[in-house]
Amino acid sequence: MADKARKNGLTFKPHMKTHQSAEIGKWFKDLDVTAITVSSVKMARYFADHSWDDITIAFPCNIRQIDEINNLASDVSLTLILSNIQTAEFLREQLSARTKIYIELDAGSSRTGLQVSDLTKIKKLISTLVDSSNLHWIGFYSHPGHSYSARSKKEIREVHKSVTEQIHQLRVNLEPEFGSFEVCIGDTPCCSVADDFDSIDAISPGNFVFYDLMQVQIGSCEVQDIATALACPIVDIYPSRNEIAIYGGAIHFSKESLQTNNFTHFGQPAATNKKGWEIYDSETYLKSLSQEHGIIKCSDKIINDFSVGDTIDIIPVHSCLTAHLIGEYLFSGGQVVQQLT
Amino acid sequence: MADKARKNGLTFKPHMKTHQSAEIGKWFKDLDVTAITVSSVKMARYFADHSWDDITIAFPCNIRQIDEINNLASDVSLTLILSNIQTAEFLREQLSARTKIYIELDAGSSRTGLQVSDLTKIKKLISTLVDSSNLHWIGFYSHPGHSYSARSKKEIREVHKSVTEQIHQLRVNLEPEFGSFEVCIGDTPCCSVADDFDSIDAISPGNFVFYDLMQVQIGSCEVQDIATALACPIVDIYPSRNEIAIYGGAIHFSKESLQTNNFTHFGQPAATNKKGWEIYDSETYLKSLSQEHGIIKCSDKIINDFSVGDTIDIIPVHSCLTAHLIGEYLFSGGQVVQQLT
Repeated sequence: MADKARKNGLTFKPHMKTHQSAEIGKWFKDLDVTAITVSSVKMARYFADHSWDDITIAFPCNIRQIDEINNLASDVSLTLILSNIQTAEFLREQLSARTKIYIELDAGSSRTGLQVSDLTKIKKLISTLVDSSNLHWIGFYSHPGHSYSARSKKEIREVHKSVTEQIHQLRVNLEPEFGSFEVCIGDTPCCSVADDFDSIDAISPGNFVFYDLMQVQIGSCEVQDIATALACPIVDIYPSRNEIAIYGGAIHFSKESLQTNNFTHFGQPAATNKKGWEIYDSETYLKSLSQEHGIIKCSDKIINDFSVGDTIDIIPVHSCLTAHLIGEYLFSGGQVVQQLT
Repeated sequence: MADKARKNGLTFKPHMKTHQSAEIGKWFKDLDVTAITVSSVKMARYFADHSWDDITIAFPCNIRQIDEINNLASDVSLTLILSNIQTAEFLREQLSARTKIYIELDAGSSRTGLQVSDLTKIKKLISTLVDSSNLHWIGFYSHPGHSYSARSKKEIREVHKSVTEQIHQLRVNLEPEFGSFEVCIGDTPCCSVADDFDSIDAISPGNFVFYDLMQVQIGSCEVQDIATALACPIVDIYPSRNEIAIYGGAIHFSKESLQTNNFTHFGQPAATNKKGWEIYDSETYLKSLSQEHGIIKCSDKIINDFSVGDTIDIIPVHSCLTAHLIGEYLFSGGQVVQQLT
């Protein structure tokens, strides 16, 4: 991802929300990354305390956290995102240090942000921002989360093309009046697959650091690109119904599921060989989760390979949530590394 | 629940997994509860450190945690559950203090435990247990989780009746050979609704301490019985699509959803009045969750009642998971209370 950013002349502001780990953050320092993206004020504080000094909080500014935001703004080069006048006016009154601001754009995801076509609101908001001495409007941020509905590289590229075309048109509409500005986009599918970043200045994907089964289904990556799994102790085996009970439930995986042609599942058991993951077979999957329990449905072949007390590796559906819940990593070299939570 | 246990001559071993709080645990001490149930070794340690000394870990014994289990067994009166010979044999060799054992029964939930009808396996396991000087077999534990498929009090009672009839038959089959034993069951729906606890000695429900929307759908309780909600800051409002963006996502609620007639939702916004919760209307619900974002779908009427920077209370679908993720409580009197996580 760092290579792709460099080749396309993009600033790389990797999102830390997936791994939430100072140790993994160092991998990016080694690639000369200097600016990062986070999803909460708490996460910004954690990385500020681990020597990062250019941090974008890519979640709509929560004005109830103004005290923590002011503390951060005095410690690091902070960028906030927002998309409404009330927040802008509140920050104009309450921010104690000059802070960079991205306006958040909704480029099709219908989650948060102003619609790119809504020039009236966008211009009004820019005017409010540039009018203030402590708000430094630098441009726009967008998470094109509708790329998560894609199911092929082709569909991801179509989403991406639509996003860059909207941004291009926005520049045509705004730059004569407001001068040039920066645009940062942040979804893993588009950043993984797209090659043309016309009109984009910076990228902030996060999930790509591990990838997961959801990204495979979307078309962002292959199973062999996934860099994490949860090792779950086997606590019981039920040959009569081809099921294995593991210590690994909703409080470890979250309840994120994937729908395949045949079933809904919560993760994919896999072994490792020299090439990477070896998915057992299509009949073996994490069938259900309760608070601490997981039930793996198994083929006849697989169930006989395991004993009570073994661990089994499960590739998660959504690595961001699983990593958040587990709170530490065992690296392949044996090192145990803590994270924020 | 304590009253019901007393009236039915049952030992009340409340499950602490829902609240995971030493402070809330004290409420049970005030009701003369002396024995509790937990779902993990870590939780057992937490409550042991908060002056509980009769603790059942109602999760299939994970033999990889033998060191922590031995530490606990030397500190408190510990009860473990298991349903396979391998675990029994491992514990026979490795347990350093005499420990009480429940055999886990599957009374219809098809999650973990031996099927009640599988007398051959049950007898073999009992024989292994009674043969060992450090394993003290005391009876059976079952979580009739199939009660979660019920959608009315009548259906819950049918599940409960089936469970007590199976236990009754088990006593007929086993007591002549092995003498009397204790049976503990632990699901909130049956313990909330049933009145006849024939053949049952102890109950260990947990969720009832808060209840939640899932329990309302099952038929265990009414909305007014729910004792918890998550107050979420409003970060953006979208009148054009009748949606409110909140700081409250999958890392706060988990991704547990409920299917109603018209839609799938992840929680129910509500106000409080003197009678309790006031659900706004059927058009207002938590529509989607990503890692930190929640999107509330609103009726026209409701969306105008809120401003950016307000909080909105969301009743969770599954209070156990939400409480686990949040890690602290704000009591109605203003006291802030931490929990285990």
